[in-house]
Amino acid sequence: MTELLKEERMTETELITKAQKAKEAAFHLAKATTAEKNEALEAISAHLLEEQVFILDENAKDVAAGRQAGMNESLVDRLTLDAARLKDMADALIQLTQLNDPIGETLEKWEQPNGLSMTKIRVPIGVVGMIYEARPNVTVDASSLCLKTGNAIVLRGSSTAINSNKAIVQTIRRALEKTKLPVEAVQLLEDTRRETASQMFKLNDYLDVLIPRGGAKLIQTVVQNATVPVLETGAGNCHLYIDGTADVEMAIDIAINAKTQRPSVCNSCESILVHKEWAAEHLAELVTALEEHDVKIHGDATVQQLSSTISPATDEDWAKEYLGFEVAIKVVETVDEAVTHINRYGTKHSEAIISGDAPSVEQFFNEVDAAAVYHNASTRFTDGYEFGFGAEIGISTQKLHARGPMGLPALTSTKYIVRGNGQTK
Amino acid sequence: MTELLKEERMTETELITKAQKAKEAAFHLAKATTAEKNEALEAISAHLLEEQVFILDENAKDVAAGRQAGMNESLVDRLTLDAARLKDMADALIQLTQLNDPIGETLEKWEQPNGLSMTKIRVPIGVVGMIYEARPNVTVDASSLCLKTGNAIVLRGSSTAINSNKAIVQTIRRALEKTKLPVEAVQLLEDTRRETASQMFKLNDYLDVLIPRGGAKLIQTVVQNATVPVLETGAGNCHLYIDGTADVEMAIDIAINAKTQRPSVCNSCESILVHKEWAAEHLAELVTALEEHDVKIHGDATVQQLSSTISPATDEDWAKEYLGFEVAIKVVETVDEAVTHINRYGTKHSEAIISGDAPSVEQFFNEVDAAAVYHNASTRFTDGYEFGFGAEIGISTQKLHARGPMGLPALTSTKYIVRGNGQTK
Repeated sequence: MTELLKEERMTETELITKAQKAKEAAFHLAKATTAEKNEALEAISAHLLEEQVFILDENAKDVAAGRQAGMNESLVDRLTLDAARLKDMADALIQLTQLNDPIGETLEKWEQPNGLSMTKIRVPIGVVGMIYEARPNVTVDASSLCLKTGNAIVLRGSSTAINSNKAIVQTIRRALEKTKLPVEAVQLLEDTRRETASQMFKLNDYLDVLIPRGGAKLIQTVVQNATVPVLETGAGNCHLYIDGTADVEMAIDIAINAKTQRPSVCNSCESILVHKEWAAEHLAELVTALEEHDVKIHGDATVQQLSSTISPATDEDWAKEYLGFEVAIKVVETVDEAVTHINRYGTKHSEAIISGDAPSVEQFFNEVDAAAVYHNASTRFTDGYEFGFGAEIGISTQKLHARGPMGLPALTSTKYIVRGNGQTK
Repeated sequence: MTELLKEERMTETELITKAQKAKEAAFHLAKATTAEKNEALEAISAHLLEEQVFILDENAKDVAAGRQAGMNESLVDRLTLDAARLKDMADALIQLTQLNDPIGETLEKWEQPNGLSMTKIRVPIGVVGMIYEARPNVTVDASSLCLKTGNAIVLRGSSTAINSNKAIVQTIRRALEKTKLPVEAVQLLEDTRRETASQMFKLNDYLDVLIPRGGAKLIQTVVQNATVPVLETGAGNCHLYIDGTADVEMAIDIAINAKTQRPSVCNSCESILVHKEWAAEHLAELVTALEEHDVKIHGDATVQQLSSTISPATDEDWAKEYLGFEVAIKVVETVDEAVTHINRYGTKHSEAIISGDAPSVEQFFNEVDAAAVYHNASTRFTDGYEFGFGAEIGISTQKLHARGPMGLPALTSTKYIVRGNGQTK
């Protein structure tokens, strides 16, 4: 046997062994009570603080290796843990204990004419496969959300965070040993080669769902290669449409918020569409406000006339998630044109209209195809916490299972319980 | 350009052209009122009857070609239409008009502390891709369920039913021309080569979901190759577990019903597990009853002792969907053993316990991983009509989006409508 083949086989063994253990653990975890699950979350919270030195030391190795390999500073920042960030993670675990446990919840209950009693209840999904980038906080976040919902998890993080992830998962498992939950419910793949991820994509016998967390490229790789069902949390090319009747101050406030509050996230605004009537009076003011906030503007011909600093917007600009201090602006004739533009270039994430005209708002709500549509509010609200869910798995841009911000129920499935007394018809 | 290449290009053009038209139609269809959709269903119902001669003539061509090609009689039966079957299809369309329209339904409504008003409503999924076998009734069934839920549909049926499908889709489209719904909402791919289906699997830009309808092989091909999300309607290796305390007459009645009422369908019973105490007293009676119904029995060692006609059950038998007058029987020591066996060999479809002991029932309900679990009732009830849904898209054996019998809501997605008055925080 060649070395390569041996390694290949070893890899498969690690993946399959751990996936099997997770599946076995999921069976027991599904029966855990809410109190047992919350006790486990509290134990993990305590251990993260107690084992802080160990975790930070291991994290420092990853950070040093990353720097040496020339990792850019924003990635280094995401990779880096410190006492404050660990404290935030520990606190989030305590907050999670306070949320309702969706498992066992009765969703529907009815009786059939033949006397069958039907109940639809929430149950865990089973085993979640999580594929993510070099953000060790996701290791805690994903594990704790899965435990709260009675799911086992197989984690496949980035090689550049492997020491951090190993330390965190060891800590989680040491905490679980003190609880009634199965230790094997949380599995970390230590082999971080691409081939292992590819094997995970098709591990339908053990994994019930795959959740990719990271950039558009990672997510698309998973979507395009996985046969295990995927919870897709996608890109956000979000628009703000300023209607002819929009309140000027409100429109500018929301534009500045949606574009500049945190431009690197998926719910920030990437393009602004302005009705020609509003544009005639107020577009210059909007441009000035954006430029004062250091936003680089790409515009159509009308917009370009306002300032020599505005570069032409290409077809590529309309489709682009800048994720930075850049925006594309277009003047439109009608709400129809705005809707058509959004449905053509948008990613079905979050879309907003600023308007004082009820029919325009209704048309926008009805015709724009997106997970969340807003009237007179910023797209930045598309977020599990802002929606009041208390936790967020991610923001779904797919149409099946869950759409928009996903709270704990997105990590559940359902089961029909049917009680009879001998019915065969 | 070679002939093959030309044909390849033509195919792609047919698929993409029709998918584009469907997507365009979906935009308009999403805005159709319930009355407009019901009028369209009524028009289709009327046209199916009016154009009966045309449809039956075209169907006869398929049947003749199928017979000539040596198609087996049960497939010929599924392919064949007659006046009575067309009448049933026309009647089903009228019944569908009487069901609630899920589109626009408010699922949740709340206000956030910052004054944002949040509403979660049901919306159509968009464009449904349907891949199915030689059953022309699916053409009507799938199209009408999609129209009722505001979805456009791209149909890809079997080459052996192409004349029937073309006639039915032409009839549907002629009916739609008289209504306010877009004619392009129903598209039939006339190219039925495998390559075209393979292209459909990955047509994420146009198709929002794929629904395979047919045998296990078809469904697995779609699941294992599609990047478009799939609504999986899977195989059913369903079990009946007869507990120690089961009422004898009830257990035998249900066993006979679940096994013999319609053995070719997914919710029929394939294996019977019998608690040793019940087996000691009543297994012989169960075996006799099954044999009187011409059921061939495969049994474990204990079961084989009862009759020389019983063949040994292999590991393959436990995993098998016989879909005929055959059953595998095993004697178990405990509920635990029954649950373990079911979770190992079952397909997570429908599982039943016959028992007079509440703790055994609770354990079975909690620990068996299936879309539907039954106490003292037949697995045959797993069906959209038996559940009172009034319609059925199929029975989902996956855990995301929908699980178990799927009614109209399974063909919907959701959208968050957020109303503000200038909120940025």
